[in-house]
Amino acid sequence: MEKTTLQVSGMTCGHCENAVKNAIMGVDGVASVMVSLSEGTAEVEYDASKAEISKMKAAVEEQGYDVE
Amino acid sequence: MEKTTLQVSGMTCGHCENAVKNAIMGVDGVASVMVSLSEGTAEVEYDASKAEISKMKAAVEEQGYDVE
Repeated sequence: MEKTTLQVSGMTCGHCENAVKNAIMGVDGVASVMVSLSEGTAEVEYDASKAEISKMKAAVEEQGYDVE
Repeated sequence: MEKTTLQVSGMTCGHCENAVKNAIMGVDGVASVMVSLSEGTAEVEYDASKAEISKMKAAVEEQGYDVE
């Protein structure tokens, strides 16, 4: 398992936290996601042989948030 | 049909708009709801013989927003 932290901007409430969490969880190979609204971060644990960070970022952007 | 406008504070994003809309729509006798995030309002059309404004307010408060 690998770990990465994405910087997510634009989250304003708990609904946003859930939207970001669910978006990343929907990427194949992602094992766990911890989203912090106050820090603007998503800590992701994933199987690097399946999941690509670019797909996590695309999933978050699709929900309307900026991500680095 | 009666109409009323509730003042809802605490909405920060489109998810919040939907949460408030769905909460009010869940009250028996409510026919339509228009929520404005920017104005902090919910315009409700309802059958006064079935729906009570107090129930609409309670449903919104249950979602974590203040309402007048």
